Amino acid sequence: MASSPTTLRLAVCLFDQVTALDYQGPIEILGFLDPNNVKPDVPTPSYLLEITYLARTLEPIKATAGPRALADRTYDEVGDGEQFDLILVPGGQGARPEKVPSSLLEFLKRQAPGAKHVLSVCTGSWILARAGLLQGKKATTNKSVFKAVVENIHGYGIDWIPKARFVVNDDKKIWTSSGVTAGMDMANAFLEYLVGKEAALRIRGIVELSAKEEGDDEFAEYYHLL
Amino acid sequence: MASSPTTLRLAVCLFDQVTALDYQGPIEILGFLDPNNVKPDVPTPSYLLEITYLARTLEPIKATAGPRALADRTYDEVGDGEQFDLILVPGGQGARPEKVPSSLLEFLKRQAPGAKHVLSVCTGSWILARAGLLQGKKATTNKSVFKAVVENIHGYGIDWIPKARFVVNDDKKIWTSSGVTAGMDMANAFLEYLVGKEAALRIRGIVELSAKEEGDDEFAEYYHLL
Repeated sequence: MASSPTTLRLAVCLFDQVTALDYQGPIEILGFLDPNNVKPDVPTPSYLLEITYLARTLEPIKATAGPRALADRTYDEVGDGEQFDLILVPGGQGARPEKVPSSLLEFLKRQAPGAKHVLSVCTGSWILARAGLLQGKKATTNKSVFKAVVENIHGYGIDWIPKARFVVNDDKKIWTSSGVTAGMDMANAFLEYLVGKEAALRIRGIVELSAKEEGDDEFAEYYHLL
Repeated sequence: MASSPTTLRLAVCLFDQVTALDYQGPIEILGFLDPNNVKPDVPTPSYLLEITYLARTLEPIKATAGPRALADRTYDEVGDGEQFDLILVPGGQGARPEKVPSSLLEFLKRQAPGAKHVLSVCTGSWILARAGLLQGKKATTNKSVFKAVVENIHGYGIDWIPKARFVVNDDKKIWTSSGVTAGMDMANAFLEYLVGKEAALRIRGIVELSAKEEGDDEFAEYYHLL
């Protein structure tokens, strides 16, 4: 007899000049675990997700491309008494050190230690690095800015992997993906890890994702990183 | 000597229960033609885009997955005196006949005849069909609901193509793509058509899209459509 699914709380981190596809790609896949969106032909998943969008303020977010978006709550409104299980950190122009909100960095420092999984897309890993979450970890980032990120974050003891669509650390806590569309492949692999291959296959069929595996990266070579 | 780029006006059609990735995928790619977002290493494109998000009202849009989004204007505010050059129609649960806003259908009937190109993603082609824009045309749609869409829209004289990542009609006016992530591959091909292979390659490098061609469709078989 199947047991009831466990609900995990997912925080999606928004900021101005975010690359909206960095979060929307994974969310379109993981969103099938939202109780309002579970499809009849997807096997009952062992986990469901409650998704919250966070930002520095409740003013509309201006992504580099895309309509203005609204967060549900601010980073500062998340108190010590609550804990997110999953955290998704996108990248983009707004992930650059001079632009990323300090309230986001503080949120990550408070919440990441108690979270089960932290996932980043594109230069979201630059934010994770600056929040001190990648020390001694393997990670990757967008290949078009790979060298600049690695140089900027030099000295944090991070094992940056150039040829990787995404990188999963052995303890499965920190997942980082390469640029933009790579976030969907990471989300597909994370979904498989979380709810199994059968449910993940149904979901990727609905969104028609031709999923790539961890090492399937054509862009490390394109950007002369090998 | 290169001539100045021509600015094209792109309308992105939003509605409640849209699949947000259906528009955000293509927009993340086409958005590099926004004058505020042209990258230094992308060859000066021959076309720039001015992007407007439209909806039935200015209330926040509730996508099936993703943060609430804000349109810039309503469909009814677009008067007879103005003309969009490009129209992008996403799909999703809200594309179903009983849900799609009549103001969107009316907008398409008014604007599509004068537009240069009309593009749809996923069940966005269901909306195009109901607006009478696919009569005598080739088209495709999401493969997980392909049979249901074709049956519903039976009699409109549409040549539905089961095995296609996307479908381009010979006059290049109507472009329809398969489900969700297929919209990015269509956008990549459209970008090549619009501004050439070199600029398109740079842009897909930045978003790390491993682009698929028109016939690269693994899902027609998965859903037993062949």
